Order: sequence, then C-alpha cells, then structure tokens
Amino acid sequence: MLIVMDAAATVEDVRRVVGAVEGLGLQAHPIPGAQRTAIGITGNRGTVDPGAFENLPGVSEVIPVSAPYKLVSRESKRENTVVSIGGVPVGGARLAIVAGPCAVESEEQAVEIGRRVRDGGAGLYRGGAYKPRTSPYSFQGLGVAGLKILARVREETGLPIITEVLDTDTVDVVAEYADCLQVGARNMQNFSLLKRLGTVRKPVLLKRGMSATIEELLLAAEYLLAEGNYDVILCERGVRTFADHTRNTLDLSAVPYVQRISHLPILVDPSHGTGKRSKVLPLSRAAVAVGADGLLIEVHHEPERALSDGPQAILPEMFRELVDEIRRLAPVVGRSV
Amino acid sequence: MLIVMDAAATVEDVRRVVGAVEGLGLQAHPIPGAQRTAIGITGNRGTVDPGAFENLPGVSEVIPVSAPYKLVSRESKRENTVVSIGGVPVGGARLAIVAGPCAVESEEQAVEIGRRVRDGGAGLYRGGAYKPRTSPYSFQGLGVAGLKILARVREETGLPIITEVLDTDTVDVVAEYADCLQVGARNMQNFSLLKRLGTVRKPVLLKRGMSATIEELLLAAEYLLAEGNYDVILCERGVRTFADHTRNTLDLSAVPYVQRISHLPILVDPSHGTGKRSKVLPLSRAAVAVGADGLLIEVHHEPERALSDGPQAILPEMFRELVDEIRRLAPVVGRSV
Amino acid sequence: MLIVMDAAATVEDVRRVVGAVEGLGLQAHPIPGAQRTAIGITGNRGTVDPGAFENLPGVSEVIPVSAPYKLVSRESKRENTVVSIGGVPVGGARLAIVAGPCAVESEEQAVEIGRRVRDGGAGLYRGGAYKPRTSPYSFQGLGVAGLKILARVREETGLPIITEVLDTDTVDVVAEYADCLQVGARNMQNFSLLKRLGTVRKPVLLKRGMSATIEELLLAAEYLLAEGNYDVILCERGVRTFADHTRNTLDLSAVPYVQRISHLPILVDPSHGTGKRSKVLPLSRAAVAVGADGLLIEVHHEPERALSDGPQAILPEMFRELVDEIRRLAPVVGRSV
Amino acid sequence: MLIVMDAAATVEDVRRVVGAVEGLGLQAHPIPGAQRTAIGITGNRGTVDPGAFENLPGVSEVIPVSAPYKLVSRESKRENTVVSIGGVPVGGARLAIVAGPCAVESEEQAVEIGRRVRDGGAGLYRGGAYKPRTSPYSFQGLGVAGLKILARVREETGLPIITEVLDTDTVDVVAEYADCLQVGARNMQNFSLLKRLGTVRKPVLLKRGMSATIEELLLAAEYLLAEGNYDVILCERGVRTFADHTRNTLDLSAVPYVQRISHLPILVDPSHGTGKRSKVLPLSRAAVAVGADGLLIEVHHEPERALSDGPQAILPEMFRELVDEIRRLAPVVGRSV
Repeated sequence: MLIVMDAAATVEDVRRVVGAVEGLGLQAHPIPGAQRTAIGITGNRGTVDPGAFENLPGVSEVIPVSAPYKLVSRESKRENTVVSIGGVPVGGARLAIVAGPCAVESEEQAVEIGRRVRDGGAGLYRGGAYKPRTSPYSFQGLGVAGLKILARVREETGLPIITEVLDTDTVDVVAEYADCLQVGARNMQNFSLLKRLGTVRKPVLLKRGMSATIEELLLAAEYLLAEGNYDVILCERGVRTFADHTRNTLDLSAVPYVQRISHLPILVDPSHGTGKRSKVLPLSRAAVAVGADGLLIEVHHEPERALSDGPQAILPEMFRELVDEIRRLAPVVGRSV
Repeated sequence: MLIVMDAAATVEDVRRVVGAVEGLGLQAHPIPGAQRTAIGITGNRGTVDPGAFENLPGVSEVIPVSAPYKLVSRESKRENTVVSIGGVPVGGARLAIVAGPCAVESEEQAVEIGRRVRDGGAGLYRGGAYKPRTSPYSFQGLGVAGLKILARVREETGLPIITEVLDTDTVDVVAEYADCLQVGARNMQNFSLLKRLGTVRKPVLLKRGMSATIEELLLAAEYLLAEGNYDVILCERGVRTFADHTRNTLDLSAVPYVQRISHLPILVDPSHGTGKRSKVLPLSRAAVAVGADGLLIEVHHEPERALSDGPQAILPEMFRELVDEIRRLAPVVGRSV
Repeated sequence: MLIVMDAAATVEDVRRVVGAVEGLGLQAHPIPGAQRTAIGITGNRGTVDPGAFENLPGVSEVIPVSAPYKLVSRESKRENTVVSIGGVPVGGARLAIVAGPCAVESEEQAVEIGRRVRDGGAGLYRGGAYKPRTSPYSFQGLGVAGLKILARVREETGLPIITEVLDTDTVDVVAEYADCLQVGARNMQNFSLLKRLGTVRKPVLLKRGMSATIEELLLAAEYLLAEGNYDVILCERGVRTFADHTRNTLDLSAVPYVQRISHLPILVDPSHGTGKRSKVLPLSRAAVAVGADGLLIEVHHEPERALSDGPQAILPEMFRELVDEIRRLAPVVGRSV
Repeated sequence: MLIVMDAAATVEDVRRVVGAVEGLGLQAHPIPGAQRTAIGITGNRGTVDPGAFENLPGVSEVIPVSAPYKLVSRESKRENTVVSIGGVPVGGARLAIVAGPCAVESEEQAVEIGRRVRDGGAGLYRGGAYKPRTSPYSFQGLGVAGLKILARVREETGLPIITEVLDTDTVDVVAEYADCLQVGARNMQNFSLLKRLGTVRKPVLLKRGMSATIEELLLAAEYLLAEGNYDVILCERGVRTFADHTRNTLDLSAVPYVQRISHLPILVDPSHGTGKRSKVLPLSRAAVAVGADGLLIEVHHEPERALSDGPQAILPEMFRELVDEIRRLAPVVGRSV
C-alpha cells in the first residue's frame, strides 16, 4: 500500500501517518518528493483497509498495491483449474460447449432442444427452471417441475445439466437435480448466496455482473473458494454501457485478463452478451479466438414462441453451423471441440 | 406496441405478423410508409412480450409503447405516497433526514453516533448489522448482535431504525428489530428477496442498482407492491460510469424523473453517491434543491477508525452544518426540515 | 511516480528499473515488501512518461503520483479566477446566468429571445451561429450572418454574447463578434482549436466532453492557459452513460471537485445535461446548490419551431420562474443573482 | 416516425398533432389504444425533426423509425465497398494488416519498424506525424518533418502510408504525403474536418469516438460521403466504460453490426482498444474471427523508448507471430492474409 501526502502536508502530518502505520504492526517507508511525500507500507499479510489512513490530516490518496484476492489468484495456484461437470471437463484443451433454451418451458420442448444440441455438438445442457425477470409480470420459470424436466433431458441425451439458482432457499433442491449451479449476473454480488454455494459439493458457474469490474468478479469467486468450493467457472456475458446496438457490450478482453491473473476457467455467453441472434455466431468465433474455455449458447427450435429471451436464441441448425465453425477455428488457439 | 418491418419485407411478411397479432386476441393496425411498413398493436391489457413478434420474417424492430409497470405508476395513483417509518413520515412536506454509521460496530459507537445525529437534526437512524462486502475478507457486520444494538439506539434516541437486509433467511429477524428494511444496490434485482419483502408488514427502502435504469428500479419496486407491500421508498445512490473522480456518479435527474412517473417517495444518498466526505455537503444541498424527499447520510464520530466506508462518512459537526444548510434551503422547494 | 514490481520479479529486474530511473536523472527508492517490491521515484519536475518503465521486465504497474496539470491547478494559484465577459464577471459572488436559443435562426427570433431573457434576469446571452450537428442533413447554423445577428442582439439588449466556435478557420471571425468563445463537448479535445484559442484575447467557455474525465477537462483547459489565455471558464454539461431517462447524465459532483483542485470558474448546463425541458428547472436549482458559478440555459419562445434542440429549450416565462427560484436559493450558498 | 400520446391526452391534443403532421405535407395515422393513442407518420422522404412534435400538448414520446443515414447505408448500396489505399484493397477477401509505430520519432526508427512490419506481413504502414495528446506537455509529433519521413518509409518498404490529420489547416499537406488520412477518435465529430476531408481525393480512415454510438459513427461517415468522398474505412478502437482492466473496452459486436447496415469496410484497432501489449494478440484473433476487414496494430522495436503509447506497442517478433496466427485463422471466415 502507498500513501500519497498533500503538497501542503507538514512534517508533523507525515510523522502521524508513520505512527499510524507502525501502530498496526507494519513498516512505513517515507519517500520525500519534489512536491510531495509518499509513504510505502510493507509487512502486511492480508489486506489493510485504506480507511485506516485516508482520513488522517495531510493524506491525499491511499493506493492499494497488492491484489485483494488470494485463492482465485494465479499467484496461489500456477496451473489452470479444470472443473468437471458431470464428467465433462471445463478448462482443458477441449472447449466446453453449453447449449439449451433460456427457460425450460415443457418436457417436450426441453428434450427436443436437448437432442438437437447434443447432435449439433454440445457437451453440456443449459436451461432455466428459476428465471430472474425484470418485471414481476413476466414468466418466472417452472421451478421444481422444471428441475425434474432437466433431469429427464440428462437421461434422454446424456448431457450434464447447468441451471440457475436464485436464492439460498432453493440451493438444495437445485443441487439435487443439477450437475452445475449457475449464478446469474444480477446475483454476482449476492453474498449470502455465494457463501451458501461455497459449501455445496457441485460446481458453480459464476456470471460477471452487468457493471462488475474483473476485480469484483474475482472477489465474488473468492467467496466461493473461501468457503471450500474450488470448482468455480467464470463467465463473461457482456456489460452495460452507453452502446445501444446490442443489449450488452461483450467485453472479450476479460478473457485473457482473467486467465493471466487467475487459474479459474472462463466461458463466454454471446447470447446474453449481444442479445441479438444475428450476432451470436460472429461473437462465438471471436470468443474462441480470444482464448475462452468454452461457450454458453441459447438455442430454441421455435424462438418466436419462446417464453423468455426469444430474440437472442438461435435455431438448432444455426447451432450446428456454429459448432462447425468453432471446430475449424479451435486448433489455431490450441483447442479442440 | 409498434412493429417496424424491414424495407424489404414482403406483403406476405406483413400478413404473417398481422396474423400473429390477431392470434393473440389483439388488433393489428398496419401503417404503410414510403420505405417500410409499421404495424401498431392495440387491445393488450398487460404487457405483450416483444419476443412473440421479433423473430417473424421481415420484422426489423419491436417498440414497446406502454409502460411495463402499473402499481408504482402515477397513472394508477395520482397523489404522492407518504410512508410512515416508526411514525416519521417520508414523502411529505417535511424532508426525511436519515443518518448514522455505515456499520454498527459496538453499542457505544452506535449509541454515541445516534445521540449526535439526533441532536444534529436527524429524524431517522441508519446503520448496518449485515454488510454486503466486495471481499470475503472484509468486516461482514455484527449480525443479530448488531440488530440488538440498533434496538438500543432507538430506545436511547427515539429515532426509528433503517437497516439493510441481505437475504430471505434473515428477513424475519431484521423485520423484528427494524422500522424499515433496506435493500442495497447489489440486491435491487434479487427478486426472491423482493418477493419475500413484499409480504412483510414493514416499509422497504429500495436503493437503485449500480447500473440500473429507472425503469428497472421501478419494476423492482413493482415486485414489492405486487406482493402487497405498498410502503416503498426509493433511493438514488449513484450509478457506475467511466467517471473516476467520485466512487459513483450521482444521477440527480432521477429524482424529478421518478416523481413524474411514480407516486413513491425518493431519497438521495450522497455518501455512497460520491464516496468522498468532501462531496457530501454540496451534493446534499443539490439533492434537496432538485426535489428529493430526503437524505441518507453516513456519519461517524471517528471515521478514521470506521470498519467500513470511513472515507465517505462525515463527522457529527459536519452533519449539523449540513442540516443547517438544508434547513435554509428547504423553503425554496416548499419543504421544511 | 511509483513502480510496482511483480511478485516474481528478480533482484536483477529491480536493479534494471533503478538503472532506468537513474538514467533519466531521477532518484529511485526501492521499498521491499512481503510479496513484492515497489520503487518510488523523485526528482522529476515535469511529468515522467510511465511508458518509460511499464515495459521493463518484472514491472507490474506504474502509478503516477503528481497531477499532470499545472497552470489550471490551485497549487499554482490559490484564489479563484474571475473572468470578465464583456464586463460581466464570472466566478465571483454573483452567479452568471447565460441564456438564449440553441441556434440563431433569424434576427427577429434572436432579438425577441434576447429581450425576454434579459428581462427575465439573464446577464449574458448565448446562441449558436455555427452548429455542430450529428447528421450532415440537419441545420448547420447561419454562419457569419448569425454572428451579425448576435451583434445586433448585444446592441438591443446590452447583454454580452457567448457563441460556439467550431474550427480554427473561423476563430478570427467569431472572436470579432463574440465576447466569449465557446468550445463544445465534441471539440473538448480538438487540440488544434484549443491551441489557436490560447492565443486569442477573448475568454473561452470550455465544455466537458461527453466521456471526458475531470483530469482530461483540466488538461484541455491547460492547453489554453499554456498558450497564454488565462480567461477560461469550464462547463459541466452531462456525460454519456447507460442511463436512458435523460439525454446525458449531469454529473454535478464535478463542480465541487473542480473547485477544489482548480481556480477556474465552472458553470453548469442543465439543458444539454438532461435534454428535457421538464428537468431544466430542478437541475438548475441543484447546480446552484452544489456551488456552480452559474448556469447556461436554452430558452426559446417557440420551442416547437426551434431548428435545433427544441425539446430541451424552456419558455421565457419558465426562465423567469427559474431565475426567481435561483434568486431565493443563492444566499444559502453565499451567492446572489 | 411514430408519435405516442399521453394516457391523459385529449381528442383535441390528438387533432392538433394530426394537424401539425399534415401541415408539413405528411400523412398522419392515429392508432387508438387501450390506454393511449399513437400516431404513425408516413410520406416523409428525408428525416423529420422530432422536435416538431415533441413539444405539442399531450405528446409523450416521438420515436424515429427510419434510419437517419443514407449514403453509407446498405439500403443505398448492396455490395461491399472495397477501398484502395495506394493499390492495396481494404474490404475484400484479403485482410488489411496495417502496422507501425504510434508516432514517427525519427527516420531511423520509422524505417526500421517499416522494414520489420513489412517482413512480418503488414500490407500498409501507420505512424503519426501529428499526435493528439491529452496533455499539452506531451510529445506532439514531428509535423511536416514526420510526413517526409513517412514518404521515405514508403520508398524504402513499398508500403502505402496511413497517418492522422488533426485539423483543416494541415489537410492539404497530409494529403500530399499520405495514401490515406486517418481521423482519430477525438475528432470523429469534428464536423469541419469531416466536411473538408469529404472534398479530398484520398481515402479516409474514420475511427469510432470514445463514446460514440454506431449511429453516430455512420453519420460521421455520412458527412464524408455527402461531400463526395466515398473512400471511407471505419475503425472500431474501443469505447470508454467503467471497466478498468483495459484502457478502453473493445466492442467487437460493432463489426457485424456495421457490416449488416453499411457497405463500408471496418477495421479493428486492438492496440488502442485494450491499451495493453499482452492483450493485442488475443484481441487481434478475435477481431478477425468476428469478421473485421483488417487490423491496425502498433509496433515498436524499442517500446520502452517510445515517445507515445509504449505500453500498447508490440515488438516486431510478436507482430510476426500475430500475422502467423491470423493467417491460420482467416480461412475459417473466408479470408486470407
């Protein structure tokens, strides 16, 4: 940590800050400058709260130097984490292709889509039984009935199941049916839910919040690891910006950035990331080219009848084409489908 | 709702859309244009899902026309809602001044601050027993012990208590101790929590999410009203933007905008809205001048020792000065302190 | 400046950075830490380019410590700058009220509005002869004819004139007619224009760019001062964010922030800042309450016929009401109208 | 265009709007709804200013339906535009690889880099003689001397030259030396410069502004075409958001979006788009995979000595590797290098 003093700070001000630092059992290293003095702090094991110094007289700014996360960091674990979802590895050489409808609407719909995405090349199935909806008047998902349908899809297709969990109350029932529990963007900082999921013995797919920095995403993941769940997969799904030609702005630079500082795998969701069917293919290619560990794709055989997110779901035949393109592209980045 | 067709849409495309509209029991009104055709839809009572049409051939765009919220809307209730928190009205001619520490740290700290903000002019007390923290290694609040301290503060000062609730598991215990339950920015779209709070018989203070539009804020409030809780107070607390001179960008235009379309009261939180002590006074004045129904202010008598958000807490003497300024300013906007 | 090394940086890496620092004639102060080493740099008079170090092996981050601006800074000049526009002071105890149409459309229109805003309480007149328009097919202003009309307005009303200059080619002619030259948001970083205006002997009103940080705004002003023009007035006019209920998000915290680090006066433009007529009054009050040195208001007597920005122009009678409210509010912040 | 009336609008309000529409020689089509009336407008050839209606009593919103751009639109020209820069086609099957230093610093530096990027696979050379710099104290480029050096680079390497033009004063001299004139992000809405460049007989590379929507980018291009210059190449270079792990957020969805609605070619600049050397390779792959017509890459053989943007320049050997990866990836999207 570095404390930068005001240009007008007095010798006494500096002395007081040094005293405060030492009072916490740390070492202070004043660096006198032409215009102002800076004070380096060392000796801290964990994170020191900047608030301890920010309000002392003469202090202009407190700059944290070490990263606030530990377990998710590559400094704590060099090699990539590979998470197994029902036997399918995520984070290894093989790309994880997750596909399925936004929401489970009926057994017929869910199984039909399941068969078609499996035949099209998907290795994992996604579908929502509990849906977070902006409006209380929108379809909120089938709940437990939806989870049972998902179990049927797994039986019929052999694909492991990823599905969203919305609250602590339903963690147990979702964990009973699903192979991997998804935390949606709106819940990325639902810390009660994260703590609870940290104690579950199933992998968690954690989506980046709509306006979350990468540091916040990693700290959210840290909540899960700190509670003992190391099977965490991250997911970039677009952030909210002024740009209005897509529903969100897919921030693909997040992928290499996360991979440099963390050992956790990271997927990309171009369906939510763009909100537009016609953008799913090109952005899927881009996601694989940038180095993502896999894709999350919304597929619906009758998108015009979808109860949720129809405009961004692609048809099964487009999905097949998408996987074909990915298959040809993957070797360039040392991957396979 | 309005459906805009592609310039290249065929007569058949238009006919198909009209059929789809009528298939839902609605009326379609094609408007042929120089370059393209638009189709107006009427007859819908609730909200029609744009997804029902967006994917039909030849459709370029679907534009919703009526507002998606109902109960929170001024069209459903003309006069302002005044919410009573432990007997203190929020939303009337008198400004609601809510003050207290970010987190309850000890009975001594909480009561001391309580006395000083009451003497400084506060009408309500705020303080967190459960704290949502970005890092799992930061102080997470005292929990139930904190709630008990808050009850002591009320006893000692006579000020009703507002405190944050983080999850459905603790709704009951928080509701037992608090006069008003706060939903923080990160939980604005925690729909399970909102639904549960809709059934509670205590007022709810709902903070705008960090990247929430006003429409999303109102729809989150709609969740509460739809479940039967009409005692809802909104709060603007800054949004996340590129601007880096403050922690968040306080969006004061939200206040008159909300007041025009909704009957619910709206407060402003300049402490979180700026994240800087030196900005709390000027932005408090601005908030009252723009027409807010009150303020939420973090006050700490020893901010350099605060366990959370020290840099944005003001001292009790600054709070007193703030209330004095507000008192002089309020009559210009037809208010009093 | 502070250089933070990687956790894995070698002693040799640190030695190389120290050598590079000293090679530039500066002093290096290594601060060994538990996990990583930081290196403080002193001895620099001007700004050192972080690029000189960022790419050396083992360097994790380079953090600038001193501010990059000088002449605009309060460290270089303690007392507030008061700029005189045609005899009307901006930046003193009296608020500067600038009002007029977005664009000059005709002598009749411009003079009529001029009389009415003067009678309503304006001290300065604004109106565009050259208009920057997003579309090449929109009205682009009357040019020199517009400038001549502005001179007529000054004659008729006695109000000094502020008008926008779009390029270096027209600086001379605009400076001939106007009392103050405005640089619009889109031109805030048109450095050729800024350098040219730095040599003009007329005050400059510099608007914050749509996505400019305060540091960038101050550095743009620094271009003007560095060329010798010290009569610079800043203006907050809203920034671009995801929020869609107003045209821009007015960032009122910019006002106290600028006033703390710079001696230059700063106005607020709630017309562009919100883009909505119904928001101009409340945000004008807020701007004065936050401490702005004045307001820039678009007024049109027939806004429904305005050739540009009609929806945000207020009527002369609303302007009169606005000034009345401001008059009552100003004393709270030690100002007058 | 569609006019949406207030729920409380009277029959008289509707009649007045219809009258205003017809007064402009257009047809009005009222669509009575359950809660409110909408009025469709047809018969307009060009764009109708929403301001003409927005302020009439009872009007709630005016929604434009047709696109405001014409010449840049695919509706005006179906096939892709291929722009020739000094004989090198941009926009065809072959990817355009533009490489070179941020700034021309000396003949030795510029030529050395030129040889190495040509040998590495570049087809075009970029380098700045005039540099837009945030601070007046940063290196501003060599000016005409830099242009002469660029001409030497072309002679030595055979690569056509792209260089930035900052103002109308230097358009002629830049056009004399360069094969293509670049308009930087900060000048995207410098309309005087755009109009002037519309009359030049050299191609223009137009970069997206830091907070420009795609519509604004296309309208800026429309300024060039409207003045007669059809040789326009667009460039996505990242937008400004809250995300702080990269300098800008590269918005790759802009590429397929632009390609759907415009016939103009579009490049991607991952150097500015990320501001970090380590992100240039992965984002270059992503840009080609998403369908970009080429890349703009900053290369420096001694980036630690670069006078501008060192941290984002890659080394010549990294550039060679980048082109190799692109070469293997291009066929997947039907391209070649």
